[in-house]
Amino acid sequence: MTVQPIDTSKTAMLEEALLAKAMPPGSLGELARLAIRIALITPKPLSRLALLLFAGDHGIVAEGTTHSPQEITWQQSVNFAKGGGACGLFARVHEVDLTVIDMGVDHSFSPSDGIEDCSLGRGTRNFLLQDAMDMKQCQTAMELGKEHVRTKRLAGFDCIAFGEMGVGNTSSASAIAAAVTGLPVRRITGKGSGLSDEELEYKCSVLERSLEKHPSRDPLQVLASLGGFEIAGIAGGIIEAASLSMPVLLDGFIVTAAALISCALEPNCKDYLIPCHLSALEGHDLLLHYLELPAPLLSLGMQLGEGTGSLTAWPIIRQASSILSEMTSFDTGGVTDSTSLLKEKGLLP
Amino acid sequence: MTVQPIDTSKTAMLEEALLAKAMPPGSLGELARLAIRIALITPKPLSRLALLLFAGDHGIVAEGTTHSPQEITWQQSVNFAKGGGACGLFARVHEVDLTVIDMGVDHSFSPSDGIEDCSLGRGTRNFLLQDAMDMKQCQTAMELGKEHVRTKRLAGFDCIAFGEMGVGNTSSASAIAAAVTGLPVRRITGKGSGLSDEELEYKCSVLERSLEKHPSRDPLQVLASLGGFEIAGIAGGIIEAASLSMPVLLDGFIVTAAALISCALEPNCKDYLIPCHLSALEGHDLLLHYLELPAPLLSLGMQLGEGTGSLTAWPIIRQASSILSEMTSFDTGGVTDSTSLLKEKGLLP
Repeated sequence: MTVQPIDTSKTAMLEEALLAKAMPPGSLGELARLAIRIALITPKPLSRLALLLFAGDHGIVAEGTTHSPQEITWQQSVNFAKGGGACGLFARVHEVDLTVIDMGVDHSFSPSDGIEDCSLGRGTRNFLLQDAMDMKQCQTAMELGKEHVRTKRLAGFDCIAFGEMGVGNTSSASAIAAAVTGLPVRRITGKGSGLSDEELEYKCSVLERSLEKHPSRDPLQVLASLGGFEIAGIAGGIIEAASLSMPVLLDGFIVTAAALISCALEPNCKDYLIPCHLSALEGHDLLLHYLELPAPLLSLGMQLGEGTGSLTAWPIIRQASSILSEMTSFDTGGVTDSTSLLKEKGLLP
Repeated sequence: MTVQPIDTSKTAMLEEALLAKAMPPGSLGELARLAIRIALITPKPLSRLALLLFAGDHGIVAEGTTHSPQEITWQQSVNFAKGGGACGLFARVHEVDLTVIDMGVDHSFSPSDGIEDCSLGRGTRNFLLQDAMDMKQCQTAMELGKEHVRTKRLAGFDCIAFGEMGVGNTSSASAIAAAVTGLPVRRITGKGSGLSDEELEYKCSVLERSLEKHPSRDPLQVLASLGGFEIAGIAGGIIEAASLSMPVLLDGFIVTAAALISCALEPNCKDYLIPCHLSALEGHDLLLHYLELPAPLLSLGMQLGEGTGSLTAWPIIRQASSILSEMTSFDTGGVTDSTSLLKEKGLLP
């Protein structure tokens, strides 16, 4: 085990510290729970978020599981790296460091595109027919994800989020999720970028046949057989962030599927995951439930990927992380602690 | 009418502009609806929020409707003005301008406290026995609220939020809400800062008797009879912000009760209200429903007042307001618009 569990024995002490803050008990709701959860991971307020956006193409698209032409993967990667798209915009608005990493896109990027080259190929293989990657590629992809997290940590970032871009990656994520959780494919497979009912039915049948083709449920083998290069990068990155005691902002369906692999390999990873946004994609809530995570902070009906759920929640997470160390107490703020007074007088239990 | 309705005929044009952005249709969920709502109020992305925090004391506390000692009103006002408390901290974290205004607190503030003096008295009168304020005070309080909004507008702020501090003001807000909406007191009266069931029952009975004592349902008379100086300031401020075409971030129960008065006087005000957070206080959702407003962005179980719901939602609102004008389109981002292509080919309806 490289990931240590958080020390939950400190929870009572942190709850007491919150009760001393100049406000009625319980009045911060989820923000108080979040403040404690973050403080159990790291004591200082969070100030700098790095979003690692991994991109990769998927051989499964040959089966026609998505409407989107594959070229969108490279086009959007370039767009994001130049500050475009939703993630580029949201990162700029919230002053988040965004790195776009080519893990295996079917394109030759130019150096001026601003994309980090970690390419392991021109996309995965079609997992209906064979393993998406070989085990060596899978392990390398995870190691590359870890390296990127270490680099950001050394550069002074104290919080990590993961985003992804990859036409066809909802298919890969659904297959991984079904393999890890044992849930039926049909409960955790969404329409992605706008499939019809018939097309969704077809997508489910492709995934069911793929799961039969790859019967191993060993987490690494699941990732190699059914994963994507970008998903493997995220799965590795989550493990590294947790081992470095960094909070991990958990985005939507695809990042959560990657987290299933991380947590299967290193169960203590889940202590470091902060669910940010409940995706409108079917089944995201089932994956969060499987991981026994609290409900996400936000539920805004987004289903975009790119790390946009994490980016949107980041200011609230940063705010919550500042409460324990920076908010005035009754004492320092010069405010009467009426709850304690009433308890002393026996007027409150 | 000083408040003009927003021009909803522009909605279709804005929806079309969103469809041209480099992302699958519908993938931004509530953020897209919010972007359009804000753009109908004002075309430029929002960048500077001013939080006006009005403080006042309440004569109704003589009836024992709250546990909190009245001194907390002035103590917290000083604490907030110095950057303390939840609102002081959250405003600092999100770079929001915070002004604390004494509308009628039972205290002599010192100039070094940093609180603006607009005091109309040492608290309202006990509205179980008489009108909380006379009509002159009520109108002056509204006018002071309007002046503060004008001042912030002139200083370059493009968005306004309201906060409040006042021991006993959930009683005043519930009474106003019951009078305006006709809803039963018991459905919209909460435990405030931790009442027991018996104490809540007593609080409701005090409010029911107060509503009988003041039978007029004229909005201004309701505000004068049952309101608070800080609530009247907010009610005026909302009208002024709407008349200046500024988005108004709608906080929790008390600010929403003030908005009921604003909207009763100027029905178009509601076009400018952006519900930020659903309070854990009973009945807040009923007031939002009465005003026919969309569901708040956040539901984090907070019940603190101080404008904390608006402060927490502000970064998301700012983010949403930037989408229409700043996000790359398929065209500018160099990304294939697969939805349009498929529609052209007749493969999508």
